[in-house]
Amino acid sequence: MSESHFDAAVALQPQADGTFLGHTHAAYGNMVGPFGGITAAQALNAALQHPKRLGDPISLTVNFAAALADGPFTVIARPARTNRSTQHWVLEIQQQGEAVLTGTAFFGLRRDTWSADEQVMPGVPRPADVVDGQRPARVEWVKRYEMRFIEGAIPTEWNGVDTGNSRTRMWLRDSPPRPLDFASLTALSDVFFPRVWRRRPTFVPIGTVSMTVYYHADQAMLQATGDGHILGQTQAQAFRNGYFDQTAQLWNEAGQLLVTTHQVVYYKE
Amino acid sequence: MSESHFDAAVALQPQADGTFLGHTHAAYGNMVGPFGGITAAQALNAALQHPKRLGDPISLTVNFAAALADGPFTVIARPARTNRSTQHWVLEIQQQGEAVLTGTAFFGLRRDTWSADEQVMPGVPRPADVVDGQRPARVEWVKRYEMRFIEGAIPTEWNGVDTGNSRTRMWLRDSPPRPLDFASLTALSDVFFPRVWRRRPTFVPIGTVSMTVYYHADQAMLQATGDGHILGQTQAQAFRNGYFDQTAQLWNEAGQLLVTTHQVVYYKE
Repeated sequence: MSESHFDAAVALQPQADGTFLGHTHAAYGNMVGPFGGITAAQALNAALQHPKRLGDPISLTVNFAAALADGPFTVIARPARTNRSTQHWVLEIQQQGEAVLTGTAFFGLRRDTWSADEQVMPGVPRPADVVDGQRPARVEWVKRYEMRFIEGAIPTEWNGVDTGNSRTRMWLRDSPPRPLDFASLTALSDVFFPRVWRRRPTFVPIGTVSMTVYYHADQAMLQATGDGHILGQTQAQAFRNGYFDQTAQLWNEAGQLLVTTHQVVYYKE
Repeated sequence: MSESHFDAAVALQPQADGTFLGHTHAAYGNMVGPFGGITAAQALNAALQHPKRLGDPISLTVNFAAALADGPFTVIARPARTNRSTQHWVLEIQQQGEAVLTGTAFFGLRRDTWSADEQVMPGVPRPADVVDGQRPARVEWVKRYEMRFIEGAIPTEWNGVDTGNSRTRMWLRDSPPRPLDFASLTALSDVFFPRVWRRRPTFVPIGTVSMTVYYHADQAMLQATGDGHILGQTQAQAFRNGYFDQTAQLWNEAGQLLVTTHQVVYYKE
């Protein structure tokens, strides 16, 4: 079992001017630039590590403005407004002084309240009864995750036939296993392959342009989840003239909804 | 039929420094501060009216950092990155130099591609066969919309009983009717009353903290929709320790999916 690359990949060095210095990591390389999930985790990490941080993440939105070049980058995390128990962050990642990511985050202190999961975990086989599925060998980041496809695996036949259904269900977790935290949960929110390939298997170029993560997990729930498997479910709602959306839910094995997440993705035909 | 207040409410005056001056409008007043949907529309409008604008909105995220005070505000819209056919915006609304809203938007030029609505419009009665429902009389902004509740109307008995279901379906449109545009579609994305009141009718204080809108409609679809009714469907996925999420879809009468939208909302118990 190799050591986890995740902590090295999201590591940031605080700079004298209040920004953070990060570096792309070869273990999370994608077809062009790094895996978007690791970039999102790096952006969040600047707020998580910021000396003015209040509370835990409730929501995060990141917009991918350009593919990151291999090498260093600067993360700017500005607490735009801090209230008594909530905090609003403005985030930006720059390379050569140009924005490659823009974003915002909302942090809050939680209180115990009446709670309920309305989107309940679907009945699925247990992780041990599902095989770790095949992935494209030339993409590095997919080796950093287990992907046990239950329904809607990556197509093996790119026949362009409209399946009428873009849903995928899969068990996933970091590989090697690693205790869950807010940064890794953010990256896990982006592991789903693009819904347009699932709906109509044609290998069209794609790129996520915006992703939003709502964190329903608090610290206690992260700890309870530990390095266990996470059930991911994702589906598109609309494909329209170059952009489609993709919604997803992540539950832990106990059936607690950890995250709901959404993204809008460019596709070229 | 009274004149529509919408255009006056979202009107912005370009300032010499490149920012925009806006003003809260009494017609869109809420319990505390204005209706969040009109504030979101004002934020988007700064990018829509900006001389450097490229293309049409594909996604918008706004974060409500504080209740707006009645009076003037400044909207700052910065094109953080403009590519050949896409553009990333950073948005902020300030009062007295303090952030009351942060946000980002993504604009793009669309191309005709293979398209499909996967989330299909549910079978519902026609707008004329559903009555315009009762709303709290002391809230001004709700008078600016028709709300024809098909399922999950605003509770009349606040009995605190868990219904196990937060879904609402309703026909809606501006009142008086007004041709749809990106700004009004943005405001319409926020008209749903909070899901926690629907799931378990207790009149707890709430406040949206972040909202994301994905625009599947282009200019042609807006024109085809005109001032017709829009079917709104919304449901929560999780209520957890002070925050719940709320997803929604908006279709035109022809069944085209115009918008998918998500928000995370604070609730106090």
